[in-house]
Amino acid sequence: MSYEKLDQLGRRLSALEHASAILGADEATHMAVGGGEARAEAMSVLSGMYHRMATEPQVADWIEAAGRENLSPEQLAALREFRRQYINLTCLPAEFVERQTRTRLRSEQLWRELRARNDWAGFQPALEENLALVREEAAMRAAVLKLDPYDALMEQYDPGNCAADVAPVFADLKSFLVDFVPRALDVQERRLAKRPLRPLSGAYPVERQRELGLAMMAAVGFDLTHGSLSVSHHPFCGGVPTDVRITTRYRANEFLSSLMGVLHETGHALYEQGLPRQWAHWPLGKARGMAIHESQSLFVEKQLGRNPAFWRWALPVVEKHLGEDWSIDDILPHVHRVERGFIRVDADEVTYPLHVILRFELEQELVSGRLEVRDLPEAWDARMKAYLGLSTLDNPGDGPMQDVHWAASLFGYFPSYTLGAMIAAQMWSALKKQLPDADERIAKGDFAAINDWRRDNVWSQASMWSTPQLIERATGEPLNAAHFKAHLEQRYGG
Amino acid sequence: MSYEKLDQLGRRLSALEHASAILGADEATHMAVGGGEARAEAMSVLSGMYHRMATEPQVADWIEAAGRENLSPEQLAALREFRRQYINLTCLPAEFVERQTRTRLRSEQLWRELRARNDWAGFQPALEENLALVREEAAMRAAVLKLDPYDALMEQYDPGNCAADVAPVFADLKSFLVDFVPRALDVQERRLAKRPLRPLSGAYPVERQRELGLAMMAAVGFDLTHGSLSVSHHPFCGGVPTDVRITTRYRANEFLSSLMGVLHETGHALYEQGLPRQWAHWPLGKARGMAIHESQSLFVEKQLGRNPAFWRWALPVVEKHLGEDWSIDDILPHVHRVERGFIRVDADEVTYPLHVILRFELEQELVSGRLEVRDLPEAWDARMKAYLGLSTLDNPGDGPMQDVHWAASLFGYFPSYTLGAMIAAQMWSALKKQLPDADERIAKGDFAAINDWRRDNVWSQASMWSTPQLIERATGEPLNAAHFKAHLEQRYGG
Repeated sequence: MSYEKLDQLGRRLSALEHASAILGADEATHMAVGGGEARAEAMSVLSGMYHRMATEPQVADWIEAAGRENLSPEQLAALREFRRQYINLTCLPAEFVERQTRTRLRSEQLWRELRARNDWAGFQPALEENLALVREEAAMRAAVLKLDPYDALMEQYDPGNCAADVAPVFADLKSFLVDFVPRALDVQERRLAKRPLRPLSGAYPVERQRELGLAMMAAVGFDLTHGSLSVSHHPFCGGVPTDVRITTRYRANEFLSSLMGVLHETGHALYEQGLPRQWAHWPLGKARGMAIHESQSLFVEKQLGRNPAFWRWALPVVEKHLGEDWSIDDILPHVHRVERGFIRVDADEVTYPLHVILRFELEQELVSGRLEVRDLPEAWDARMKAYLGLSTLDNPGDGPMQDVHWAASLFGYFPSYTLGAMIAAQMWSALKKQLPDADERIAKGDFAAINDWRRDNVWSQASMWSTPQLIERATGEPLNAAHFKAHLEQRYGG
Repeated sequence: MSYEKLDQLGRRLSALEHASAILGADEATHMAVGGGEARAEAMSVLSGMYHRMATEPQVADWIEAAGRENLSPEQLAALREFRRQYINLTCLPAEFVERQTRTRLRSEQLWRELRARNDWAGFQPALEENLALVREEAAMRAAVLKLDPYDALMEQYDPGNCAADVAPVFADLKSFLVDFVPRALDVQERRLAKRPLRPLSGAYPVERQRELGLAMMAAVGFDLTHGSLSVSHHPFCGGVPTDVRITTRYRANEFLSSLMGVLHETGHALYEQGLPRQWAHWPLGKARGMAIHESQSLFVEKQLGRNPAFWRWALPVVEKHLGEDWSIDDILPHVHRVERGFIRVDADEVTYPLHVILRFELEQELVSGRLEVRDLPEAWDARMKAYLGLSTLDNPGDGPMQDVHWAASLFGYFPSYTLGAMIAAQMWSALKKQLPDADERIAKGDFAAINDWRRDNVWSQASMWSTPQLIERATGEPLNAAHFKAHLEQRYGG
């Protein structure tokens, strides 16, 4: 049985994935500082083994032959996802992958160095070289997948998404936000004039913040027998579904940023913990893609964690762990703080999408050749002015050099962030129809029914459907900006 | 070049070893409790990959062909160790290994269950089945290695050791100890009559004990940029040479057992950290074997850590971390406590060798067929009475069921513990000849010259020599019980 051979191969690949995932999480949390070189060597050998094993020519034969075997609909879906993985791994010639990897690593290294020095002129040639290869990559992927070049890049992150569908939704959201951001800022200013911001600062020992984080994780559904919380420089969610490693970092005088980060990563973790065990060693059993993953993390962070109802329940928990008795009116202005800024990763949920849409627009032009790297700083600046009223011309480090993505050849990835935010809002709307008292439940710290909805509609579905299909099946309609706009209106519109 | 192919294969095998070592350490320290099943599956697939890769028939061809290439003496040694590894991995048929693994896992499981219930009758058939396979294994290894069956088992742990050499040295030590143990107990009793034991108990927060452990590790030479200290149920030294993971466990009211454990594991770690980097991916670059490894851990624990000179330096460090100002006369009676007991792992350095010699004698008889499992409890009891004056007949859980080794098919391993203790003492004698002021250095917390000697003679030598060769090169003579006896006389003989 060829299907059986794929099942066996899946178990071998899965063991290598397990090793890489734990080694990766370990590297960021527990590895000795001098262990990096040997770790990098080991991980690169393991990833080479994985690639060789997953792309052997006989795998194509097994996929082909299994299609003629007597398979259940679920097995057929498993086969489809195996084929997708095989095509994504084999559609670029090995020689090209090596060349691109070398170029990318050099450009990432250069980025780390030059961003800190704000040195666009030094970085530009490296990014040009990178982009040239990304254009080649997009063309090759497009030829195999029979998609437009930019869509062929997006396909790796969110199968089924294409610019023709995403662009109008983003355009709609953009025209809304360009008006809405000033309005939300105005509302905030008037509120703060009435009741000035009370700082939440104090002395919060790391151990107490950690206990608070663990209590919140457990309350919103994180299974602490299948995962843990550690410290790392950049927060992440890693590990494997049976042992999900999330991390945070702590500031001694402030608890909210760490706690919100913990909730965000918990959202990713719930998705991983909720994936179907029996398919764990097949591509079918993996999370669908970046946009859906981000929707799950943002759902916990924004729909739950920044919901006023959440703080009716959470404040006593915070008080118990940190000994502070803030009122809900002390907390919410911090939780809902809106601010125009240069930096995407520091942005709040109102301004964040404009950062992403700007990149989405620019990277399409870059990939298609309508925009060249040398013209990027001006193009970036023009859009930052138009969307957020900020100029970045004299400060490329906080402009087109701020993200690692392009330096790392990740084109087509940015849309996932804002798609995730929109999907989260759309799911919240759909869920509220079935669970009209969702807010009351949250205010009691009862997340069970909410998680049941998400388990049924998202987590257990793994990679059964394309990204657009999953959205439509879960919410009853295609991606629709109205829900996210309504969410912002309600929370920030005054 | 076939040698080059072995080098490449070594890099691949080394990546899998790296993964297994870190996954293993992680499992005991940071893994979520529910992550065990998937971890076991991943590790077993990885070890299968390792075995397949290391035992491919073409590897034998490469080893053969490399022998005809123009190699340096060091490369020839590397080839010799590669051959040894290949033979050890291939001398048992795959079918046998699978059968033995199944039997062993069942017998280990049973042992865990039945030892707690003191149920020898239930355990006996499982151990009989295990032993039958070990006898088969010994015969097969013996045929390939052209050694006696028991020696062929020992060969896996300490290459070059054989019962004919070890037995007379152990016999010499045994006859000394049977007289010496009562004498040492007598000396201790008279000392305690003059100055009663002062308890070292108090309240020692784990975090302070940890800081004390780290300070001691660093002081005796542990490179904290290439390793770390964690908590686990059973202390161990694992990880990889560039990132050595040692563990301990803490009791809140007592610090000495944890600290001595940390020193012991630090001894193992120093060996790993001191191995030659350029050979890390060859068997040649690995630690020589169990006896030498144990000699390195015991050296730090006994020759250094239980040395009165050590406590002249260590007491202020302990006081700084735990806030207790014990005198050297308070500490030493604890550090040098001698007690007859049933349990090997709880034994002090005076009585410990008798536990090991008893097992060494019995397991040779078991492997050769001169003793059967059904007669083991009486044979054990007779020797426990003769060597330590204790009877275990009514309590097999503290008798022949106390160790996991035989349940886990590890025959030929026990001698390594006491060989390690003897080698450590013999190395200390040799080192003192070159460094007559070693004690004064220790009393100042200066371990540099001592570690230099050990680096030159042991750590940097990795697997260049057989176990007996390494001993003779380092100390100028073959294994000689006189040094260990002199060590015990000096410390416990009054």
